Amino acid sequence: MKPLILISNDDGYQSGGLQSLIEALRPLARLVVVAPDKGRSGMACACTFSVPVYKWLVADNDDVAVWGCSGTPVDCVKLAFADVLTEQPAMVIGGINHGDNSAVNAHYSGTMGVVYEGCMKGIPSVAFSLDSHDPFADFTPLVPWIQKITSYVLERGLPKGTCLNVNFPATPTYKGLRVCRMAWGQWKNEFERRDHPRGGDYYWLTGKFELGELSDADADRVALNEGYIAVTPFRLDATDYALKTELEKVFSAHE
Amino acid sequence: MKPLILISNDDGYQSGGLQSLIEALRPLARLVVVAPDKGRSGMACACTFSVPVYKWLVADNDDVAVWGCSGTPVDCVKLAFADVLTEQPAMVIGGINHGDNSAVNAHYSGTMGVVYEGCMKGIPSVAFSLDSHDPFADFTPLVPWIQKITSYVLERGLPKGTCLNVNFPATPTYKGLRVCRMAWGQWKNEFERRDHPRGGDYYWLTGKFELGELSDADADRVALNEGYIAVTPFRLDATDYALKTELEKVFSAHE
Repeated sequence: MKPLILISNDDGYQSGGLQSLIEALRPLARLVVVAPDKGRSGMACACTFSVPVYKWLVADNDDVAVWGCSGTPVDCVKLAFADVLTEQPAMVIGGINHGDNSAVNAHYSGTMGVVYEGCMKGIPSVAFSLDSHDPFADFTPLVPWIQKITSYVLERGLPKGTCLNVNFPATPTYKGLRVCRMAWGQWKNEFERRDHPRGGDYYWLTGKFELGELSDADADRVALNEGYIAVTPFRLDATDYALKTELEKVFSAHE
Repeated sequence: MKPLILISNDDGYQSGGLQSLIEALRPLARLVVVAPDKGRSGMACACTFSVPVYKWLVADNDDVAVWGCSGTPVDCVKLAFADVLTEQPAMVIGGINHGDNSAVNAHYSGTMGVVYEGCMKGIPSVAFSLDSHDPFADFTPLVPWIQKITSYVLERGLPKGTCLNVNFPATPTYKGLRVCRMAWGQWKNEFERRDHPRGGDYYWLTGKFELGELSDADADRVALNEGYIAVTPFRLDATDYALKTELEKVFSAHE
């Protein structure tokens, strides 16, 4: 029997990227999809405490079951494990995201929220994103690479506490695949003020991302800009061990 | 003139923890608070794209300005930089959170969202959390430690891309301070199903956190359990450099 893969995303279960991911993975695995009922971009690892969460079956055939869920991407994964899956999945996959999740901006990503959550549950987890917000973007060039990376992870696994963040350039042909690190950068002018027609003002989150490094080939955003698929391994453990050692000297007198 | 510190949290600007933080930091700095108008726990690094964000001045006196904001903790920090602060702050501080933000659960934390955002902006950033959800918890034992850690960071700074996650035990006396790493653990039985009175069912996010390591003294949750203040340095760069090196060998044929 084919292995089972749990899929979620942050663009909603009706997104084109999710449909393309299903088609790409169908030859490799049985699929359970539990995904938000609407766009939930920028939700990071957010989860829902204050309101109840609902789920409902959308489709179930040919080894693909699709559930809609009222919660965040992380809620979707948690709810799948709590009351949808009847066996441990071999992998958790997030995507295909409409838009890249590269550089420090991965910290805002609901797609990466899916993958962090899978990783926390001890399941090998991978995010796929396309560097295009075009709702009619062509995902077919990604398919062989998604199948290749998924097959590799199904066969070899990933170290405990580590997941993969895979970003594809918008260009339909790739120069190749590059193993990367998270690029540094900063947002500028992030909120735009508008006058409210009834008085007062309000703000839209917007802004311009300034990449902090433009030449390091292994920075994920640079690799994308150069036409490479960027594969960045992420670890859940956020500890800065170098600073830990340093601070131990500073604070050691206080134990 | 005293340095300027930007404060936010995820419990809302009226929370007791925030008021205690203001009192603790007042002797050290001028303070600008931009904090959510209601509890926004579990919002991680989420930010708001689909609805406008509002802010309003709540109080402004004695070198303390307090703004309420309709957005997430990360929105609060972004909006402060975009249209509240008139100078770069010397630090960004999140808290004092009602409840701990230790182990892998820091990934869900809006308090850590504040601190990640400050760190992304290149500002030394620190989160303070108390391991108690009692809304009337006594924060006074934390004050000298918060002043000590803040003074240290004001004077010495933090490396670029690194921030601090500080958790205090619920006990009013501490055995000391321990520099820690993020503990591993997993949530079990995370959603509780309920019958809806109008038919169908819904779910509440709940569950039990099982700490994955019970004996390693430098795991932050273990230090807390043993009565120590846990100071964990976090780095923004989530790259797993060990796996990066390994994957480069696997995929190097594809460039």
